[in-house]
Amino acid sequence: MKKFAVVLSGNGVFDGAEIHEATLTLYAIIKHGASYEIFAPDIPQHHVINHITGEEMPETRNVLVESARIARGTIKNLKHYKVEDYDALIFPGGFGVAKNLSTVAFDGPDAKVNAEVERAVKETNDHGKPIGALCIAPAMIAKILEGATVTIGQDPGTIEAIGKMGGTHINTSHGDVVYDDNLNLFSTPCYMLDANILQIAEGADNIVSAMLKVM
Amino acid sequence: MKKFAVVLSGNGVFDGAEIHEATLTLYAIIKHGASYEIFAPDIPQHHVINHITGEEMPETRNVLVESARIARGTIKNLKHYKVEDYDALIFPGGFGVAKNLSTVAFDGPDAKVNAEVERAVKETNDHGKPIGALCIAPAMIAKILEGATVTIGQDPGTIEAIGKMGGTHINTSHGDVVYDDNLNLFSTPCYMLDANILQIAEGADNIVSAMLKVM
Repeated sequence: MKKFAVVLSGNGVFDGAEIHEATLTLYAIIKHGASYEIFAPDIPQHHVINHITGEEMPETRNVLVESARIARGTIKNLKHYKVEDYDALIFPGGFGVAKNLSTVAFDGPDAKVNAEVERAVKETNDHGKPIGALCIAPAMIAKILEGATVTIGQDPGTIEAIGKMGGTHINTSHGDVVYDDNLNLFSTPCYMLDANILQIAEGADNIVSAMLKVM
Repeated sequence: MKKFAVVLSGNGVFDGAEIHEATLTLYAIIKHGASYEIFAPDIPQHHVINHITGEEMPETRNVLVESARIARGTIKNLKHYKVEDYDALIFPGGFGVAKNLSTVAFDGPDAKVNAEVERAVKETNDHGKPIGALCIAPAMIAKILEGATVTIGQDPGTIEAIGKMGGTHINTSHGDVVYDDNLNLFSTPCYMLDANILQIAEGADNIVSAMLKVM
Protein backbone atom coordinates (compact mmCIF):
# COMPACT_ATOMS: atom_id res chain seq x y z
CA MET A 1 0.00 0.00 0.00
CA LYS A 2 1.36 3.41 -0.99
CA LYS A 3 1.81 5.85 1.88
CA PHE A 4 1.50 9.64 1.75
CA ALA A 5 3.03 12.04 4.25
CA VAL A 6 0.57 14.93 4.59
CA VAL A 7 1.96 18.20 6.02
CA LEU A 8 -0.48 20.53 7.78
CA SER A 9 0.07 24.15 8.82
CA GLY A 10 -2.54 24.66 11.55
CA ASN A 11 -6.32 24.44 11.50
CA GLY A 12 -8.30 27.18 9.73
CA VAL A 13 -7.95 28.91 6.39
CA PHE A 14 -6.86 32.37 7.58
CA ASP A 15 -4.03 31.36 9.94
CA GLY A 16 -3.55 27.63 9.36
CA ALA A 17 -4.35 24.72 7.07
CA GLU A 18 -7.50 25.07 4.97
CA ILE A 19 -9.80 22.52 6.60
CA HIS A 20 -11.76 21.39 3.53
CA GLU A 21 -8.56 20.94 1.48
CA ALA A 22 -6.89 19.01 4.30
CA THR A 23 -9.89 16.75 4.98
CA LEU A 24 -10.62 16.10 1.32
CA THR A 25 -6.95 15.28 0.65
CA LEU A 26 -7.06 12.65 3.41
CA TYR A 27 -10.34 11.35 1.97
CA ALA A 28 -8.90 11.14 -1.57
CA ILE A 29 -5.86 9.21 -0.31
CA ILE A 30 -7.95 6.53 1.45
CA LYS A 31 -10.52 6.44 -1.37
CA HIS A 32 -7.77 5.54 -3.85
CA GLY A 33 -6.49 2.68 -1.69
CA ALA A 34 -3.44 4.42 -0.23
CA SER A 35 -2.69 5.39 3.38
CA TYR A 36 -1.37 8.48 5.14
CA GLU A 37 0.46 9.84 8.13
CA ILE A 38 0.08 13.47 9.13
CA PHE A 39 2.89 15.87 10.07
CA ALA A 40 3.27 19.47 11.16
CA PRO A 41 6.15 21.53 12.52
CA ASP A 42 6.24 22.18 16.27
CA ILE A 43 6.31 26.00 16.00
CA PRO A 44 4.09 28.90 17.06
CA GLN A 45 1.54 30.15 14.55
CA HIS A 46 2.41 33.53 13.05
CA HIS A 47 -0.83 34.81 14.59
CA VAL A 48 -4.39 33.76 15.47
CA ILE A 49 -7.23 35.15 13.34
CA ASN A 50 -10.88 35.38 14.38
CA HIS A 51 -12.42 33.74 11.30
CA ILE A 52 -15.64 35.79 11.59
CA THR A 53 -14.15 39.28 11.88
CA GLY A 54 -10.79 38.68 10.21
CA GLU A 55 -9.10 40.40 13.13
CA GLU A 56 -6.09 39.16 15.07
CA MET A 57 -6.83 37.63 18.47
CA PRO A 58 -4.54 38.31 21.47
CA GLU A 59 -3.38 34.73 21.96
CA THR A 60 -0.81 32.23 20.72
CA ARG A 61 -1.36 28.77 19.25
CA ASN A 62 1.03 26.03 18.15
CA VAL A 63 0.96 24.70 14.58
CA LEU A 64 1.47 21.04 15.59
CA VAL A 65 -1.13 21.18 18.38
CA GLU A 66 -3.77 22.88 16.19
CA SER A 67 -3.07 20.60 13.21
CA ALA A 68 -3.73 17.66 15.54
CA ARG A 69 -7.42 18.67 15.51
CA ILE A 70 -7.68 17.79 11.81
CA ALA A 71 -5.60 14.66 12.46
CA ARG A 72 -7.83 13.54 15.38
CA GLY A 73 -4.72 13.38 17.55
CA THR A 74 -2.65 11.11 15.30
CA ILE A 75 0.14 13.38 14.10
CA LYS A 76 3.95 13.55 14.08
CA ASN A 77 6.40 16.37 14.50
CA LEU A 78 7.73 17.18 11.02
CA LYS A 79 11.31 16.90 12.29
CA HIS A 80 10.71 13.12 12.49
CA TYR A 81 9.80 12.85 8.79
CA LYS A 82 11.99 10.18 7.14
CA VAL A 83 11.71 10.17 3.36
CA GLU A 84 12.44 6.41 3.24
CA ASP A 85 9.15 5.64 5.03
CA TYR A 86 6.83 7.36 2.52
CA ASP A 87 6.02 7.22 -1.18
CA ALA A 88 4.93 10.84 -1.55
CA LEU A 89 4.71 14.17 0.24
CA ILE A 90 1.65 16.45 -0.03
CA PHE A 91 0.76 19.92 1.23
CA PRO A 92 -2.89 21.05 1.51
CA GLY A 93 -3.22 24.85 1.37
CA GLY A 94 -4.51 27.64 3.59
CA PHE A 95 -2.76 30.78 4.80
CA GLY A 96 -0.85 28.63 7.28
CA VAL A 97 1.39 27.54 4.42
CA ALA A 98 2.15 31.18 3.64
CA LYS A 99 2.33 32.42 7.25
CA ASN A 100 3.57 29.46 9.35
CA LEU A 101 5.42 27.07 7.02
CA SER A 102 6.86 30.01 5.10
CA THR A 103 6.58 33.80 4.89
CA VAL A 104 5.13 33.85 1.35
CA ALA A 105 2.11 35.89 2.57
CA PHE A 106 4.37 38.68 3.79
CA ASP A 107 7.56 38.52 1.73
CA GLY A 108 6.37 37.13 -1.62
CA PRO A 109 9.40 36.22 -3.75
CA ASP A 110 11.76 36.91 -0.82
CA ALA A 111 9.92 34.49 1.47
CA LYS A 112 11.74 32.39 4.04
CA VAL A 113 10.75 28.75 4.48
CA ASN A 114 10.69 26.80 7.75
CA ALA A 115 13.85 24.67 7.89
CA GLU A 116 12.02 21.37 8.52
CA VAL A 117 9.62 22.02 5.64
CA GLU A 118 12.56 22.80 3.36
CA ARG A 119 14.37 19.64 4.45
CA ALA A 120 11.29 17.45 3.88
CA VAL A 121 10.70 18.89 0.40
CA LYS A 122 14.36 18.69 -0.67
CA GLU A 123 14.91 15.16 0.62
CA THR A 124 11.71 13.94 -1.05
CA ASN A 125 12.80 15.59 -4.29
CA ASP A 126 16.34 14.16 -3.98
CA HIS A 127 14.81 10.70 -3.72
CA GLY A 128 12.76 11.32 -6.87
CA LYS A 129 9.48 10.83 -5.01
CA PRO A 130 6.40 12.86 -5.99
CA ILE A 131 5.43 16.06 -4.18
CA GLY A 132 1.92 17.52 -4.29
CA ALA A 133 0.86 21.06 -3.43
CA LEU A 134 -2.64 22.55 -3.23
CA CYS A 135 -3.86 26.16 -3.23
CA ILE A 136 -1.04 28.55 -2.14
CA ALA A 137 1.39 25.70 -1.29
CA PRO A 138 2.82 25.58 -4.85
CA ALA A 139 4.24 29.11 -4.33
CA MET A 140 6.16 27.85 -1.30
CA ILE A 141 7.44 24.84 -3.23
CA ALA A 142 8.58 27.16 -6.05
CA LYS A 143 10.65 29.00 -3.44
CA ILE A 144 12.28 25.73 -2.29
CA LEU A 145 12.83 23.93 -5.61
CA GLU A 146 14.52 26.06 -8.27
CA GLY A 147 12.86 26.29 -11.65
CA ALA A 148 9.56 24.69 -10.62
CA THR A 149 6.56 24.79 -12.93
CA VAL A 150 3.37 25.11 -10.89
CA THR A 151 -0.17 26.46 -10.78
CA ILE A 152 -1.96 28.45 -8.11
CA GLY A 153 -4.87 29.22 -10.43
CA GLN A 154 -5.00 32.77 -11.78
CA ASP A 155 -4.06 35.23 -8.99
CA PRO A 156 -1.82 37.93 -10.58
CA GLY A 157 0.17 38.86 -7.44
CA THR A 158 1.08 35.28 -6.58
CA ILE A 159 1.89 34.51 -10.22
CA GLU A 160 4.28 37.49 -10.29
CA ALA A 161 5.94 36.31 -7.07
CA ILE A 162 6.42 32.80 -8.49
CA GLY A 163 8.06 34.32 -11.57
CA LYS A 164 10.46 36.33 -9.42
CA MET A 165 11.36 33.14 -7.52
CA GLY A 166 12.48 31.69 -10.88
CA GLY A 167 9.41 29.50 -11.25
CA THR A 168 7.02 29.12 -14.17
CA HIS A 169 3.29 29.51 -13.67
CA ILE A 170 0.55 27.87 -15.73
CA ASN A 171 -2.98 29.34 -15.44
CA THR A 172 -5.60 26.77 -14.54
CA SER A 173 -9.23 26.39 -13.48
CA HIS A 174 -11.10 24.18 -10.98
CA GLY A 175 -9.76 20.64 -10.66
CA ASP A 176 -6.83 21.10 -13.05
CA VAL A 177 -3.49 19.56 -12.07
CA VAL A 178 -0.14 20.83 -13.40
CA TYR A 179 2.67 18.27 -13.54
CA ASP A 180 6.32 19.32 -13.58
CA ASP A 181 7.90 16.06 -14.80
CA ASN A 182 11.39 17.38 -14.23
CA LEU A 183 10.79 17.80 -10.47
CA ASN A 184 8.01 15.15 -10.17
CA LEU A 185 5.88 17.96 -8.73
CA PHE A 186 2.08 18.23 -8.87
CA SER A 187 -0.04 21.31 -8.13
CA THR A 188 -3.73 22.30 -8.21
CA PRO A 189 -5.42 25.62 -7.36
CA CYS A 190 -8.33 24.71 -5.01
CA TYR A 191 -9.42 27.75 -2.92
CA MET A 192 -6.91 30.05 -4.67
CA LEU A 193 -9.83 30.19 -7.10
CA ASP A 194 -13.34 31.24 -6.02
CA ALA A 195 -14.39 27.62 -5.49
CA ASN A 196 -17.03 25.57 -3.72
CA ILE A 197 -16.34 22.45 -1.67
CA LEU A 198 -17.25 20.15 -4.58
CA GLN A 199 -14.50 21.73 -6.67
CA ILE A 200 -12.06 21.30 -3.76
CA ALA A 201 -12.93 17.61 -3.57
CA GLU A 202 -12.36 17.35 -7.32
CA GLY A 203 -8.96 19.08 -7.10
CA ALA A 204 -7.83 16.92 -4.17
CA ASP A 205 -9.01 13.76 -5.91
CA ASN A 206 -7.31 14.69 -9.17
CA ILE A 207 -3.94 15.54 -7.62
CA VAL A 208 -3.88 12.42 -5.41
CA SER A 209 -4.83 10.10 -8.27
CA ALA A 210 -2.27 11.76 -10.59
CA MET A 211 0.44 11.30 -7.96
CA LEU A 212 -0.49 7.64 -7.43
CA LYS A 213 0.11 6.98 -11.16
CA VAL A 214 3.82 7.78 -10.75
CA MET A 215 4.26 6.00 -7.41
CA MET B 1 -32.66 24.18 -4.51
CA LYS B 2 -33.06 22.53 -1.11
CA LYS B 3 -31.22 24.25 1.73
CA PHE B 4 -29.72 22.62 4.83
CA ALA B 5 -28.95 24.41 8.08
CA VAL B 6 -25.78 22.77 9.46
CA VAL B 7 -25.11 23.27 13.18
CA LEU B 8 -21.49 23.08 14.36
CA SER B 9 -20.20 22.80 17.94
CA GLY B 10 -16.61 24.05 17.64
CA ASN B 11 -13.65 22.80 15.64
CA GLY B 12 -11.94 19.58 16.73
CA VAL B 13 -13.21 16.16 17.79
CA PHE B 14 -12.33 16.28 21.50
CA ASP B 15 -13.86 19.66 22.40
CA GLY B 16 -15.82 20.72 19.30
CA ALA B 17 -17.25 19.56 16.00
CA GLU B 18 -15.59 16.53 14.44
CA ILE B 19 -13.83 18.08 11.46
CA HIS B 20 -14.10 15.18 8.98
CA GLU B 21 -17.80 14.69 9.74
CA ALA B 22 -18.49 18.42 9.37
CA THR B 23 -16.51 18.80 6.14
CA LEU B 24 -17.89 15.64 4.56
CA THR B 25 -21.46 16.65 5.47
CA LEU B 26 -20.96 19.97 3.66
CA TYR B 27 -19.44 18.08 0.73
CA ALA B 28 -22.35 15.61 0.57
CA ILE B 29 -24.90 18.45 0.59
CA ILE B 30 -23.29 20.25 -2.38
CA LYS B 31 -22.58 16.96 -4.20
CA HIS B 32 -26.29 16.11 -4.12
CA GLY B 33 -27.29 19.46 -5.58
CA ALA B 34 -28.46 21.15 -2.37
CA SER B 35 -27.03 24.16 -0.53
CA TYR B 36 -26.19 24.96 3.09
CA GLU B 37 -25.78 27.67 5.67
CA ILE B 38 -23.74 27.05 8.79
CA PHE B 39 -24.75 27.94 12.35
CA ALA B 40 -23.29 27.67 15.84
CA PRO B 41 -24.27 29.08 19.23
CA ASP B 42 -22.33 32.08 20.54
CA ILE B 43 -21.22 30.47 23.79
CA PRO B 44 -17.90 29.53 25.43
CA GLN B 45 -16.60 26.00 24.85
CA HIS B 46 -16.86 23.75 27.90
CA HIS B 47 -13.05 23.50 27.73
CA VAL B 48 -10.12 23.41 25.30
CA ILE B 49 -8.36 20.06 24.77
CA ASN B 50 -4.83 19.61 23.43
CA HIS B 51 -5.61 17.06 20.72
CA ILE B 52 -2.15 15.44 20.99
CA THR B 53 -2.01 14.88 24.77
CA GLY B 54 -5.74 14.82 25.54
CA GLU B 55 -5.12 17.28 28.36
CA GLU B 56 -7.06 20.44 29.07
CA MET B 57 -5.38 23.70 28.02
CA PRO B 58 -5.57 26.81 30.24
CA GLU B 59 -7.52 28.96 27.80
CA THR B 60 -11.05 29.74 26.65
CA ARG B 61 -12.49 29.56 23.14
CA ASN B 62 -15.90 30.47 21.71
CA VAL B 63 -18.01 27.86 19.88
CA LEU B 64 -19.19 30.28 17.16
CA VAL B 65 -15.71 31.72 16.55
CA GLU B 66 -14.04 28.31 16.37
CA SER B 67 -16.81 26.81 14.19
CA ALA B 68 -16.18 29.70 11.76
CA ARG B 69 -12.87 28.02 10.90
CA ILE B 70 -14.71 25.08 9.33
CA ALA B 71 -17.17 27.52 7.73
CA ARG B 72 -14.36 29.68 6.24
CA GLY B 73 -15.90 32.68 8.00
CA THR B 74 -19.43 32.30 6.60
CA ILE B 75 -21.46 31.39 9.66
CA LYS B 76 -24.49 32.64 11.60
CA ASN B 77 -25.32 32.80 15.27
CA LEU B 78 -27.76 29.95 15.96
CA LYS B 79 -30.15 32.39 17.64
CA HIS B 80 -30.89 33.76 14.14
CA TYR B 81 -32.00 30.35 12.80
CA LYS B 82 -35.46 30.67 11.24
CA VAL B 83 -37.04 27.35 10.41
CA GLU B 84 -38.99 28.91 7.49
CA ASP B 85 -35.75 29.58 5.60
CA TYR B 86 -34.47 25.98 5.53
CA ASP B 87 -35.61 22.57 4.35
CA ALA B 88 -33.66 20.51 6.88
CA LEU B 89 -31.47 20.74 9.97
CA ILE B 90 -28.35 18.59 10.44
CA PHE B 91 -25.81 18.09 13.24
CA PRO B 92 -22.34 16.64 12.52
CA GLY B 93 -20.83 15.00 15.62
CA GLY B 94 -17.77 15.43 17.79
CA PHE B 95 -17.54 15.89 21.57
CA GLY B 96 -18.65 19.50 21.06
CA VAL B 97 -22.21 18.20 20.67
CA ALA B 98 -21.93 16.44 24.03
CA LYS B 99 -19.93 19.16 25.84
CA ASN B 100 -20.97 22.48 24.28
CA LEU B 101 -24.39 22.01 22.66
CA SER B 102 -25.45 19.77 25.53
CA THR B 103 -24.01 18.07 28.62
CA VAL B 104 -24.51 14.50 27.32
CA ALA B 105 -20.79 13.74 27.88
CA PHE B 106 -21.08 14.54 31.58
CA ASP B 107 -24.68 13.94 32.57
CA GLY B 108 -25.81 11.15 30.21
CA PRO B 109 -29.59 10.70 30.47
CA ASP B 110 -29.87 13.79 32.71
CA ALA B 111 -28.12 16.03 30.18
CA LYS B 112 -29.08 19.66 29.69
CA VAL B 113 -29.32 21.04 26.17
CA ASN B 114 -28.41 24.56 25.05
CA ALA B 115 -31.64 26.57 24.73
CA GLU B 116 -30.98 27.71 21.15
CA VAL B 117 -30.20 24.16 20.05
CA GLU B 118 -33.38 22.92 21.70
CA ARG B 119 -35.42 25.69 20.04
CA ALA B 120 -33.95 24.93 16.57
CA VAL B 121 -34.64 21.20 16.90
CA LYS B 122 -38.16 21.61 18.28
CA GLU B 123 -39.21 24.24 15.72
CA THR B 124 -37.84 22.14 12.85
CA ASN B 125 -39.68 19.12 14.20
CA ASP B 126 -42.89 21.14 14.72
CA HIS B 127 -42.73 22.13 11.05
CA GLY B 128 -42.35 18.47 10.03
CA LYS B 129 -38.98 19.12 8.41
CA PRO B 130 -36.26 16.44 8.52
CA ILE B 131 -33.51 16.49 11.13
CA GLY B 132 -30.20 14.65 10.70
CA ALA B 133 -27.72 13.68 13.41
CA LEU B 134 -24.27 12.08 13.06
CA CYS B 135 -22.04 10.30 15.60
CA ILE B 136 -22.98 11.35 19.19
CA ALA B 137 -25.54 13.97 18.04
CA PRO B 138 -28.44 11.45 17.98
CA ALA B 139 -28.12 11.07 21.77
CA MET B 140 -28.66 14.82 22.16
CA ILE B 141 -31.66 14.72 19.81
CA ALA B 142 -33.13 11.82 21.85
CA LYS B 143 -32.93 14.10 24.89
CA ILE B 144 -34.83 16.88 23.05
CA LEU B 145 -37.48 14.87 21.16
CA GLU B 146 -39.37 12.40 23.30
CA GLY B 147 -39.55 8.81 22.09
CA ALA B 148 -36.95 9.16 19.35
CA THR B 149 -35.59 6.09 17.58
CA VAL B 150 -31.91 6.62 16.72
CA THR B 151 -28.53 4.99 16.22
CA ILE B 152 -25.11 5.92 17.58
CA GLY B 153 -23.58 2.62 16.45
CA GLN B 154 -22.91 0.10 19.20
CA ASP B 155 -21.52 1.91 22.28
CA PRO B 156 -23.16 0.31 25.37
CA GLY B 157 -22.94 3.35 27.69
CA THR B 158 -24.50 5.73 25.20
CA ILE B 159 -27.16 3.17 24.24
CA GLU B 160 -28.11 2.82 27.92
CA ALA B 161 -28.34 6.62 28.28
CA ILE B 162 -30.60 6.87 25.22
CA GLY B 163 -32.87 4.23 26.74
CA LYS B 164 -33.09 6.15 30.02
CA MET B 165 -34.04 9.28 28.03
CA GLY B 166 -37.02 7.32 26.70
CA GLY B 167 -35.47 6.77 23.29
CA THR B 168 -35.06 3.56 21.31
CA HIS B 169 -31.64 2.55 19.96
CA ILE B 170 -30.97 0.44 16.89
CA ASN B 171 -27.49 -1.08 16.53
CA THR B 172 -25.82 -0.25 13.24
CA SER B 173 -22.50 -0.46 11.39
CA HIS B 174 -20.56 1.86 9.05
CA GLY B 175 -22.70 3.92 6.71
CA ASP B 176 -26.05 2.71 8.04
CA VAL B 177 -28.83 5.28 8.48
CA VAL B 178 -31.73 4.84 10.91
CA TYR B 179 -34.95 6.65 10.02
CA ASP B 180 -37.57 7.49 12.63
CA ASP B 181 -40.54 8.20 10.37
CA ASN B 182 -42.66 9.41 13.26
CA LEU B 183 -40.23 12.26 14.01
CA ASN B 184 -38.76 12.55 10.48
CA LEU B 185 -35.38 12.02 12.14
CA PHE B 186 -32.27 10.47 10.55
CA SER B 187 -29.15 9.23 12.35
CA THR B 188 -25.85 7.52 11.43
CA PRO B 189 -22.94 6.42 13.66
CA CYS B 190 -19.78 7.78 11.92
CA TYR B 191 -16.85 8.06 14.39
CA MET B 192 -18.92 6.57 17.25
CA LEU B 193 -17.65 3.42 15.54
CA ASP B 194 -13.94 2.74 14.98
CA ALA B 195 -14.08 4.18 11.47
CA ASN B 196 -11.81 5.56 8.77
CA ILE B 197 -12.47 8.72 6.78
CA LEU B 198 -13.90 6.76 3.84
CA GLN B 199 -16.58 5.33 6.12
CA ILE B 200 -17.33 8.83 7.44
CA ALA B 201 -17.81 10.06 3.87
CA GLU B 202 -20.15 7.13 3.24
CA GLY B 203 -22.19 7.85 6.38
CA ALA B 204 -22.46 11.58 5.59
CA ASP B 205 -23.43 10.85 1.99
CA ASN B 206 -26.04 8.27 3.01
CA ILE B 207 -27.73 10.46 5.61
CA VAL B 208 -27.80 13.55 3.37
CA SER B 209 -29.19 11.63 0.39
CA ALA B 210 -31.80 9.88 2.61
CA MET B 211 -32.90 13.27 3.98
CA LEU B 212 -33.17 14.76 0.49
CA LYS B 213 -35.63 12.02 -0.49
CA VAL B 214 -38.18 13.35 2.04
CA MET B 215 -37.56 17.06 1.32
